[in-house]
This record gives sequence, C-alpha cells and structure tokens, in this order.
Amino acid sequence: MSQARFEFWYDFSSPFAYLGSTQVEALAARCQATIEWRPFLLGGLFKLIGTPDVPLFTWSEAKRRYTMLDMQRHADLYGVPFRWPSHFPLLTVAPLRLALAAGPDIARLSRGVFHAFWAEDRDISKPEELTAVCTSLGLPAELVGRTQDPAIKEALKRSTEEARDRGLCGAPSFVVGSEVFWGQDRLHFVERALRGQAPTP
Amino acid sequence: MSQARFEFWYDFSSPFAYLGSTQVEALAARCQATIEWRPFLLGGLFKLIGTPDVPLFTWSEAKRRYTMLDMQRHADLYGVPFRWPSHFPLLTVAPLRLALAAGPDIARLSRGVFHAFWAEDRDISKPEELTAVCTSLGLPAELVGRTQDPAIKEALKRSTEEARDRGLCGAPSFVVGSEVFWGQDRLHFVERALRGQAPTP
Repeated sequence: MSQARFEFWYDFSSPFAYLGSTQVEALAARCQATIEWRPFLLGGLFKLIGTPDVPLFTWSEAKRRYTMLDMQRHADLYGVPFRWPSHFPLLTVAPLRLALAAGPDIARLSRGVFHAFWAEDRDISKPEELTAVCTSLGLPAELVGRTQDPAIKEALKRSTEEARDRGLCGAPSFVVGSEVFWGQDRLHFVERALRGQAPTP
Repeated sequence: MSQARFEFWYDFSSPFAYLGSTQVEALAARCQATIEWRPFLLGGLFKLIGTPDVPLFTWSEAKRRYTMLDMQRHADLYGVPFRWPSHFPLLTVAPLRLALAAGPDIARLSRGVFHAFWAEDRDISKPEELTAVCTSLGLPAELVGRTQDPAIKEALKRSTEEARDRGLCGAPSFVVGSEVFWGQDRLHFVERALRGQAPTP
C-alpha cells in the first residue's frame, strides 16, 4: 500500500511560508500523508528565474498595506502568533543550512526557527540565536557548526536549483506528485490532490 | 432590520474578476446579503497607485505559467468555463461604461460580458459584440449608445478614483463595511465578514 506524501518547500524569510508551516502537519494528519520538508534559498530562486529579490519592496503602497493585512488575517484564521520582524529582509543561508543539517529533526527544527523569527522577532541570521533555538528544542548545539560543512552548503545550492527545475516560482510551494501549488492559501488544493492519491489497500 | 451587503469591484479585463463573478451570487444567497456591482477601470487604478499596466507581463516565466494553471484550477473548482482570450489585453472602457449604463440590469449585463470574453473569446471592446450581448440578454441595444454619454463617462472615472480612495490594489475586490478583500481566492474571508455583520432582528 502506498502512502500519500507531499513536499513542503520553504525559506524562513517568507511570511507566507511561516504561515504555511503552522498548517502542514494538521493537513498531513487529515490526509494520512507524510511531509518532506524542503528548505531552499528563495532569493536564489528569484535570481535564477528573474524576480525582484524582495517583491514586497517593488509593490505599490496600496498593495503592500493590503498584503500586511492579509498576512494578519491568515494568522488570525489559523490562530497563530504573527509579528513583522524588525530584521527584514535578512540572510537565511545559515538557518536553511541548519535545517538541512538537522536530518530526522528537520521538521521540529524548522518550526522552531520559523517561530523564533515570525513570532519572537529574533535575528535568525545569527549563530548564537540558532544555537539558542537548538538548545531550547533539546537538539545538540553542535548542529550550528555544521552550517559550514561543504556538503551542507552544496545541498542547499542543489535544492535551490531543483526548485527552479521543478517550476517553483515562490514560497511556500507544495508538490504532490508532479503538481505544484504556491502559497499557504492553496492548501485546500493540496488537500484535494492528496485525497486524489489516497492509499490503495 | 439591516441587510448584510458587500460591494464587488471588477473590471472585465481581469480573469480573477471573471472567476469571482461566477461565485458572488451563490455567496450572497448563502449569507442573505445583497451585492453592489462596482465596475471600475483596473488600468486606471494601476496608473493612480503605481503598478505596471498588465502585471502578468512583468512576471517571470515560471510565475506566469503557474498563474495560468492556478486560474484553470479555480475554473475547475467552480465548474465554470475558462478560455484565455485571443484579444488580451484589450480596452474595457466601453463594456465598463455599458455596465454603468445598465442600471438595475447591471448584474445580468456584467455576467453576460464576462462570459462573452472569458468563456466565448469574443472581443468585448467592439460595440457590435456589446450589442449582441445586450440582445441575447433581452436588453435594449440602445444601451450601447449610452457609453458615449458624458455622465456615464464621468461615472466610470469617479468609480476608478473611488477605488483608489478606498485602498483597493487590484481586481476583483470585495468590500464589507470598511474591510477590503482582494481576489476571488479571498471569498471565504468575505463570507466570514458577512456572517459577522448578520442581520439583527
């Protein structure tokens, strides 16, 4: 019997990815599906496909104001904390590499990093903050040192190129089979796709 | 007793507004609400707030391809026909004025124009096509002549400025009280807002 599964592609720099990260596990439980957590560098993908580095900064004031409100509405809908970080944008290479280094603890670590940045306004580009996140989760602080490991560096680069090759255009993205869905506001489509590929007894 | 109501702001040039137009009446019925149909010139709003005239043309190829797929997914979800028009972009000043001229028939006329463009690939910038739409709906063909009426011209201009003043940043937009929601994919938020302002007996 095959198990339904989906990939969750994310960068900690995306508020929408944070919002999505708070919902993927309940979705997976509803659909009896497994999640593959796929960190990638959103700014790197933007460079590869030709998108402004921080789209928010290119928008009209009206669209920027509306989008801020829309994020808060989603946070309220989901019942999760949300606070615009004082350090934005910031470099997420280190925390993304940390997620890749976490191995079987990637989900727990990633939720912790998302929360530190989008709920607690902590500067997740700093090794000492990442160490604090690891410690609070009961994960070894040594993980942070592995962000300098050449194999981990290469893995993040490869993931970002794979995001491009798979047709992703932003974060969060969800992949079910060969179908790509973009945005936490498309999780209902992800759910329909997962139910379509329900396990055959 | 006060009746729940919402405004539906649209331009026929927007595929998302077409998709939204196919859903607003069922939503209104579920919430026992009334709809105020508010045509406005999206390109005019974009000029006023500083957005590229046709955002689609400024996107990366990956985002353009994804968005086309996303539109089709919404059409499939709603069970409505959707066909990318061969005349796109096109000038929608005439059909928008026609909607304003239609008075009490604005909903019926607007649905007819949306369908002609987004399901039947008809060039709705042409007076003869607009005449055909009116005739097929049993509305007087003379309405099309009223698109040259200075008062109607002025009304469209004022609506577009009001869209800017109300904080709109795109189409479709939905307004409940002072709350703005953007996109057919936010209709669930509109529904929640309408239920919050349920009639008091």
